[in-house]
Amino acid sequence: MGGEVQYDRVRAIELRDGAVYLLDQRVLPSEVRYEVCQDATQVASAITDMVVRGAPAIGVTAAYGVVLAAASAFGAAGPQWRPAMAADMERLRRSRPTAVNLHWALARMEEVMERLGPDDPTAAMTAAATRLHADDIEANRRMGALGAALLPAQARLLTHCNTGALATGGYGTALGVVRAAAARNGVAAVYADETRPWLQGARLTAWELVTEGLPATILADGAAGALLKRGDIDAVLVGADRIAANGDTANKIGTYGLAVLARHHGVPFYVVAPTSTIDRACKDGSGIPIEERDPLEVLAFRGVRHSPEQAQAWNPVFDVTPAALVDALITEAGVVEHPDARGIAALFERVGR
Amino acid sequence: MGGEVQYDRVRAIELRDGAVYLLDQRVLPSEVRYEVCQDATQVASAITDMVVRGAPAIGVTAAYGVVLAAASAFGAAGPQWRPAMAADMERLRRSRPTAVNLHWALARMEEVMERLGPDDPTAAMTAAATRLHADDIEANRRMGALGAALLPAQARLLTHCNTGALATGGYGTALGVVRAAAARNGVAAVYADETRPWLQGARLTAWELVTEGLPATILADGAAGALLKRGDIDAVLVGADRIAANGDTANKIGTYGLAVLARHHGVPFYVVAPTSTIDRACKDGSGIPIEERDPLEVLAFRGVRHSPEQAQAWNPVFDVTPAALVDALITEAGVVEHPDARGIAALFERVGR
Repeated sequence: MGGEVQYDRVRAIELRDGAVYLLDQRVLPSEVRYEVCQDATQVASAITDMVVRGAPAIGVTAAYGVVLAAASAFGAAGPQWRPAMAADMERLRRSRPTAVNLHWALARMEEVMERLGPDDPTAAMTAAATRLHADDIEANRRMGALGAALLPAQARLLTHCNTGALATGGYGTALGVVRAAAARNGVAAVYADETRPWLQGARLTAWELVTEGLPATILADGAAGALLKRGDIDAVLVGADRIAANGDTANKIGTYGLAVLARHHGVPFYVVAPTSTIDRACKDGSGIPIEERDPLEVLAFRGVRHSPEQAQAWNPVFDVTPAALVDALITEAGVVEHPDARGIAALFERVGR
Repeated sequence: MGGEVQYDRVRAIELRDGAVYLLDQRVLPSEVRYEVCQDATQVASAITDMVVRGAPAIGVTAAYGVVLAAASAFGAAGPQWRPAMAADMERLRRSRPTAVNLHWALARMEEVMERLGPDDPTAAMTAAATRLHADDIEANRRMGALGAALLPAQARLLTHCNTGALATGGYGTALGVVRAAAARNGVAAVYADETRPWLQGARLTAWELVTEGLPATILADGAAGALLKRGDIDAVLVGADRIAANGDTANKIGTYGLAVLARHHGVPFYVVAPTSTIDRACKDGSGIPIEERDPLEVLAFRGVRHSPEQAQAWNPVFDVTPAALVDALITEAGVVEHPDARGIAALFERVGR
């Protein structure tokens, strides 16, 4: 894998002129605005504040953040650039707790760093981050092909959150499968849970779908049960923020309920994620840290509070779907049906990792 | 039953000075504003536009609408007031399709009308509507007591939509059980699904709870699965808009998914509704008409569109929960465990209907 980044229509993450340009996902699709991060601290803040979100996209962004950190460290400390990067690396590492792709990307960048000498590391680090980014897109295209092969022609699909070009280096994971299925055999309908509280489905997934000329129907998260009961859905496709070694999957809040409903109705439930999302050090879902964010994300909308002042909110960002509810895990290295610890270990054996 | 209306803290529906005053539930709790309906047409529009919502509240409001229709008909047609009311009755009947309490209330008012002579019907109709309203509150208090008896002390409860004083004549159905449980043995936690797209939970239920000094925690609808999985909920309590003769229950969109999740986690799922919500002419849930409302309720928030212009939305207002997922139906006439056609028929036999 590797090489130049081949962007699709959406250029959500870009390293240009020594800065990281991030398409601000907080204001899409009402506004198309870029946040320009000049240093790693700004990149870490952008991840924390969800200018960019989606596990693979966070990984790519963090890798570019490492480039800025390396350039800045060499500017300040010359040949001693490596220790001068420590604080920035820590800032990036702490920017979001759940997505493991962040740690994976930082580890991959650190491997490159360790091989470098005292000279300016910027060019080598840029090449490494760009390769990581291009690899992510290539992985997504493979997952798209593998996933599309599992779907009937003119499939009617339901997805949750945003797992498209915006959530990844490009193309998308679950939404990449939708794109690939549309290109291969057509899709009859794509339903997107609006995905409260952040509305990634209503804002971002719907925007990507209509941009591609695909049929997009948004529904309130609570309506997914009624939709599945109608018998109008051929498969549910979701992404992942971290997958444990046994296949338990942390993903956007609401995914678990959707998995229970899909199983109740006998509808296949597919998790689509690159192997960088699999945390082999994490035995099962109980070991995955679940981020809780500001209750105001639930209690207010665009800064206007709609709930009473004295009310509390519980705002977990992710939930964990037990592997037993996942019909197949679709990765760039292959499809694991009925994922469990053995199936996932075999996947890594096949690719020699 | 019957008599004067004894209001709680919330005076959501009131007949006063020949007009119906409705607490505008579209703007609560940010604003406390009353809509004043001078005639039955305005009452019907207020129901359609969801100034007032909640099946029992719609029934009470429609009954007061009949009072305005009768007064106006007598003013225009004198002794011929009865045929002069036909258009208004039809307007009220068509104001919302799903809640059967509307039809029940109109039928009860028609029974009274049929017994009246050619004189001014206003006083008799006012008395009938007031009695219907008072009866609803009394029924709620009975359901509260019956429901509270099913719950442990310091119960941790989860509810959906708003089923309180605002959704009924007063006190509430499912939220009435919460109130009664709080008074009887205390409640440790009350979780309210925010209930998209209309946010009845975040706006109305939370407002009623904090007004009563009860602990209110709002969550995104998609978070209910994770909450149930934590094992922190003793019972799920919901209301109903129409219950078929076999116990299948139409209620706010999202109820069905919640019922599946409650069953998956072995948490009791209770439907709390007066017998006026039971439509004995409707054999099962497939016969219940499900209202679909303007897609903009999903696509925009307070008039500001957050989703792309070309995206569609599916906006069913209700879903149907099969009786098999209901652990008990709590009515003012008694509790029906594992409701089915026989159990519900037996309930009506017991009360001689």
